[in-house]
Amino acid sequence: MGCIQSFRQLCDYPKNTNVHISFPAVCFVWQTAMIILFGIFIRYNEESDPHWVEHKKANNLSDLDNDFYFRYPSFQDVHVMIFIGFGFLMTFLKRYSFGAVGFNFLIAAFGIQWALLMQGWFHSLDAEGKIRIGVENLINADFCVASCLIAYGAVLGKVSNVQLLVLTLFGVTLFAVDEYIIVSVIHARDAGGSMSIHTFGAYYGLCISWMLYRPNLNQSSRLQGSVYHSDVFAMIGTLFLWMFWPSFNSAISDHGDGQHRAVINTYLALASTVLTCMAISSLFNKHGKLDMVHIQNSTLAGGVAVGTAAEFMLMPYGALIVGFCCGIISTLGYIYLTPFMEKHLKIQDTCGIHNLHAMPGLIGGIVGAITAASASKSVYGEEGLINTFDFEGKFKDVVPTQQGGYQAAGLCVALCFGVGGGILVGCILRLPIWGDPADDNCFNDEAYWELPEDEEAASPVLHYNNHMQNKDVAESHFTMEQT
Amino acid sequence: MGCIQSFRQLCDYPKNTNVHISFPAVCFVWQTAMIILFGIFIRYNEESDPHWVEHKKANNLSDLDNDFYFRYPSFQDVHVMIFIGFGFLMTFLKRYSFGAVGFNFLIAAFGIQWALLMQGWFHSLDAEGKIRIGVENLINADFCVASCLIAYGAVLGKVSNVQLLVLTLFGVTLFAVDEYIIVSVIHARDAGGSMSIHTFGAYYGLCISWMLYRPNLNQSSRLQGSVYHSDVFAMIGTLFLWMFWPSFNSAISDHGDGQHRAVINTYLALASTVLTCMAISSLFNKHGKLDMVHIQNSTLAGGVAVGTAAEFMLMPYGALIVGFCCGIISTLGYIYLTPFMEKHLKIQDTCGIHNLHAMPGLIGGIVGAITAASASKSVYGEEGLINTFDFEGKFKDVVPTQQGGYQAAGLCVALCFGVGGGILVGCILRLPIWGDPADDNCFNDEAYWELPEDEEAASPVLHYNNHMQNKDVAESHFTMEQT
Amino acid sequence: MGCIQSFRQLCDYPKNTNVHISFPAVCFVWQTAMIILFGIFIRYNEESDPHWVEHKKANNLSDLDNDFYFRYPSFQDVHVMIFIGFGFLMTFLKRYSFGAVGFNFLIAAFGIQWALLMQGWFHSLDAEGKIRIGVENLINADFCVASCLIAYGAVLGKVSNVQLLVLTLFGVTLFAVDEYIIVSVIHARDAGGSMSIHTFGAYYGLCISWMLYRPNLNQSSRLQGSVYHSDVFAMIGTLFLWMFWPSFNSAISDHGDGQHRAVINTYLALASTVLTCMAISSLFNKHGKLDMVHIQNSTLAGGVAVGTAAEFMLMPYGALIVGFCCGIISTLGYIYLTPFMEKHLKIQDTCGIHNLHAMPGLIGGIVGAITAASASKSVYGEEGLINTFDFEGKFKDVVPTQQGGYQAAGLCVALCFGVGGGILVGCILRLPIWGDPADDNCFNDEAYWELPEDEEAASPVLHYNNHMQNKDVAESHFTMEQT
Repeated sequence: MGCIQSFRQLCDYPKNTNVHISFPAVCFVWQTAMIILFGIFIRYNEESDPHWVEHKKANNLSDLDNDFYFRYPSFQDVHVMIFIGFGFLMTFLKRYSFGAVGFNFLIAAFGIQWALLMQGWFHSLDAEGKIRIGVENLINADFCVASCLIAYGAVLGKVSNVQLLVLTLFGVTLFAVDEYIIVSVIHARDAGGSMSIHTFGAYYGLCISWMLYRPNLNQSSRLQGSVYHSDVFAMIGTLFLWMFWPSFNSAISDHGDGQHRAVINTYLALASTVLTCMAISSLFNKHGKLDMVHIQNSTLAGGVAVGTAAEFMLMPYGALIVGFCCGIISTLGYIYLTPFMEKHLKIQDTCGIHNLHAMPGLIGGIVGAITAASASKSVYGEEGLINTFDFEGKFKDVVPTQQGGYQAAGLCVALCFGVGGGILVGCILRLPIWGDPADDNCFNDEAYWELPEDEEAASPVLHYNNHMQNKDVAESHFTMEQT
Repeated sequence: MGCIQSFRQLCDYPKNTNVHISFPAVCFVWQTAMIILFGIFIRYNEESDPHWVEHKKANNLSDLDNDFYFRYPSFQDVHVMIFIGFGFLMTFLKRYSFGAVGFNFLIAAFGIQWALLMQGWFHSLDAEGKIRIGVENLINADFCVASCLIAYGAVLGKVSNVQLLVLTLFGVTLFAVDEYIIVSVIHARDAGGSMSIHTFGAYYGLCISWMLYRPNLNQSSRLQGSVYHSDVFAMIGTLFLWMFWPSFNSAISDHGDGQHRAVINTYLALASTVLTCMAISSLFNKHGKLDMVHIQNSTLAGGVAVGTAAEFMLMPYGALIVGFCCGIISTLGYIYLTPFMEKHLKIQDTCGIHNLHAMPGLIGGIVGAITAASASKSVYGEEGLINTFDFEGKFKDVVPTQQGGYQAAGLCVALCFGVGGGILVGCILRLPIWGDPADDNCFNDEAYWELPEDEEAASPVLHYNNHMQNKDVAESHFTMEQT
Repeated sequence: MGCIQSFRQLCDYPKNTNVHISFPAVCFVWQTAMIILFGIFIRYNEESDPHWVEHKKANNLSDLDNDFYFRYPSFQDVHVMIFIGFGFLMTFLKRYSFGAVGFNFLIAAFGIQWALLMQGWFHSLDAEGKIRIGVENLINADFCVASCLIAYGAVLGKVSNVQLLVLTLFGVTLFAVDEYIIVSVIHARDAGGSMSIHTFGAYYGLCISWMLYRPNLNQSSRLQGSVYHSDVFAMIGTLFLWMFWPSFNSAISDHGDGQHRAVINTYLALASTVLTCMAISSLFNKHGKLDMVHIQNSTLAGGVAVGTAAEFMLMPYGALIVGFCCGIISTLGYIYLTPFMEKHLKIQDTCGIHNLHAMPGLIGGIVGAITAASASKSVYGEEGLINTFDFEGKFKDVVPTQQGGYQAAGLCVALCFGVGGGILVGCILRLPIWGDPADDNCFNDEAYWELPEDEEAASPVLHYNNHMQNKDVAESHFTMEQT
């Protein structure tokens, strides 16, 4: 720990947010690399290739058997969660809405390309050394990027766009390895990604934030809150995440009953979470008032926590119970844990991802392990058990209790990758070359965005807050009033 | 009427909006009850159960025959209408956006759980006493909640969150009985719910609002308007409702031509409504200007009014005519009827649900009855007629004219349930225990929400409006300017 | 050119934005005409008619073979792009959000009705003289309207709602002829409409804007920018367009591999565009800051540019390359071309549609021609080639190089229709009867909308900008502060 401390101090340096050269350079180099790698590796799979018509005839299929029709509606819902959901959820800060929605867009657009390659190398490489992609790969790429967007939540407002691209490059890489180990090596099931997406992404972000700890962040405290309209914008993100979470958890689960069941479980868990989240928010406020931070975030915890078990026989009441608990835990996390972590653990977690993704993700992994371990032929049916847990090929002799162990092992892997990867990438991001903002200039779009000219006049909030520092402005303003 | 008057006075009392204990208590108790009841009653149906694989083989089906693939895209559209559509439609008030979108979220999340139970008891109870749920139940639960959200529109800004939970508990209960009588007993068809959802929900809300009449509501008039940005937020709600209404009306109609036709009719009715709504809005303004209130609401009336007849042979031009008339009637309602109702009938209808849901719902019921009564084998084909009106089982000898009568009867039932239920629940909500706001504190998020700290400074509107009452604030402000 | 100049001057006249009579009259007359024409011409097609059940049995189909299930999810995505996407994209102006989203709504709602008729007459007229409509016609109607909404982008804030209805009437008519020639006569393929929608729509709008040139538009310059929140609203439009563009380009392409491939290509092209757009935006700013105008618009250029070739074998890396180039070109267009066009070509292009639709549309047409010309049986397979390019009937002997020529010819037709139609309609719109705003009152919702009463107080931006003109207001304000 001492060495981390000294490394942190070593990297302190006067800040310069000018990314005039570095940002365009990184974008161009990486996008060019993507084109070259796609040229070498990526091809259409048999369902998106014009030879489909022959394949269809040979196998006596209809066009509807194309996986496209099973998955495309869910894919679009997931896509909305990634770009609108995560993007707008982070617009709550009064002066960081451009950064929230714009950098979210940047991360996701770059990340999905790199994810198609990384996941392709691990999962879809064919005998000719080509990656054959179809709609399921697009969904998986969106999933992969979700883990980086979760991590962004922890460092929101405190990093430059160049740092975010680095965070994404490593995040996607780590995710692909992590997911390969969890799903293919250990044979844990994780359709909605409680472990591989949420647990990994959250601890990855939290450890980066820990490495980038800013002792003087309170110099930006004037910008660290919301205003009325920015809270309403954030609700757009919240609601699209909440509504489409059933699609997230069912997007890549088994055709037929698997997708159907995942939707029902997620729908119920989320509904239950809303009530307990609001109850706790009101109970712990001295006037019984609700806090928008809780509503925007903790109402989603139930969706995270049924990510792994959504396609299992969690049972409808089981889903309600998971949601019930997560609504409580996540909201209490915002009230007690986030301030504690900032004060004592030196982890500054802008969006509270520890409460929304880390804890519910861990719960989701545990619920998945328990549900898997207690599976039985009487409940699932003989074939149902095989289908649901994929007890085929070299895993055909696995029994449910073993599978429960695999699930637990998967959770540990996700945790380790998150913590280890976060510390590593945090070290890299501390180097004095990335153009991150100074402590008194965090949560401020002005560092990386051309703001509309009349902003000063348009936002009395900032104006009055900065009053004492800006006497000359105030005076000229006063003079105007007298004219 | 005299007794209602005296009951109203009896319940007048000094207001206290502190729901510190009551709100969390209600949430926890009800959510716990849901878990217990779900544990006893709710199970997966055969299409969402792992035994699906056996069922599929036994009946020679493919995965695509799972109802999930017929209905899930429509379900997600309906879900968006419930949470984003209704939620954002009500954000138009300058200081009640949190309440609009947040309490909408609360009502819907609680209501869908209770609706799954209530509707299940009436429609899906199997021999073992279990309710078997699948995607169609989720859609129906969303539909049921829609009626409560419509009712919320009438009392928006004037009730506490505890009252809303009570309104929802009773609303869902009444809806389930109402719908059972309309659809199963009377055998009226009502795919898009003009009668069971809109007519019932609107009169339920209007009667509650009548019971909760506030003679001194003008004390809150400073907060009863919109501001520029809140009107733009409301357009998000309007447009998502408008765009996805075809999914709403087709979500549970017959597979194949039924869903297809319902979409076409709804699409056309809505398009037509937009033009006549805007025309009337401009015509009745002395400068020919458009009024956002009309655009936000009356453009949707056509969707309500084809709810019942959407799956019938309304014909494309018929759909346009219905939309044409509803655009006119609904907009005129906002101009003349809403002020009249407030002044003379003591019904304060915040969102104008009488114009958007009640009148178009009644029209929809009548259009449905006429369309059904004039159905013929030459237009529908022999089998088409049976499929469309479900002339099977004990209803196999029904003729279209009879069906027209059934439809009319259904409309009357919806109306009675709405009015009766509204008066009953209105009485309950008048009891002095629910924490509703005082007359001078309506339409104000401050009563139930922690607002961002800098609100006072951030919103000159409120500041200047309250100027005379807050001289000390103004003076300190002035002093700052001089510093 | 001289004669156009004199025609322009001839039509200069004192402006009166009162559309009290003309706007409602046009709406009512046109909507009535729609009802009559729909009554004469429009019927359900066999998949939305109750006789479907007989058709299904006769052809041994299942309900799932109904085109509804292939296209409805894409249709809804396209619908969102039209109403939310285009509508909110244009809300960026500080005082024209009502007009952006409201008139967009008006145009689209009218246009889809007229498009169903126009396209029906050209494409779906049956032996009995009836147009048989189904979900594909609804998609095509939405597509057709898109071209008018693109044109609206060029004249945003400078025309009246009556002018927009005229623009739409002619735009839809021209589009239908244009598309008939491109697709049916010339036999060019254009699934995503790079040519028929984007190229045509953009040049149509630009030429109208050229005809309506306002030399004194700088009198409205105080209103020609954005404010912080209006830029966030615009991002809602951007993101919904971006996310659903794969549905746009695949909505009417071939079932099976065609739709699947179009989605993949569009997804990749758009991802690539985001990175190069942001890179250029930062590179050409002296502090390396990003400009919201570029992010809101140029990130979409890749979707436009793969519109034609999305269903061809563009290859994943090909899609990335197209996106890469368009991100650069479109962003540079905003930086250099838009000011140049305004200054030297007298084309005032409010939303920069030349950069977002015209140039990428031309690129898309060229990419389509090249990709088609280089098609081969080895890549597509024998049947795949026939399916993809529809080498059937009288076109069964066409070879790919010929098809490349057809594509190029299609692009020229789109360009000619856009330019010619725009000049013609521009002349009509210059007549002094349409109620358009004066040069100092452009970009101002006040001309056509009842604004919330308290706007003056609520928006310090306008207040301070107008300060010098409104001394009395300022003084009374000051007096209040002293009270």
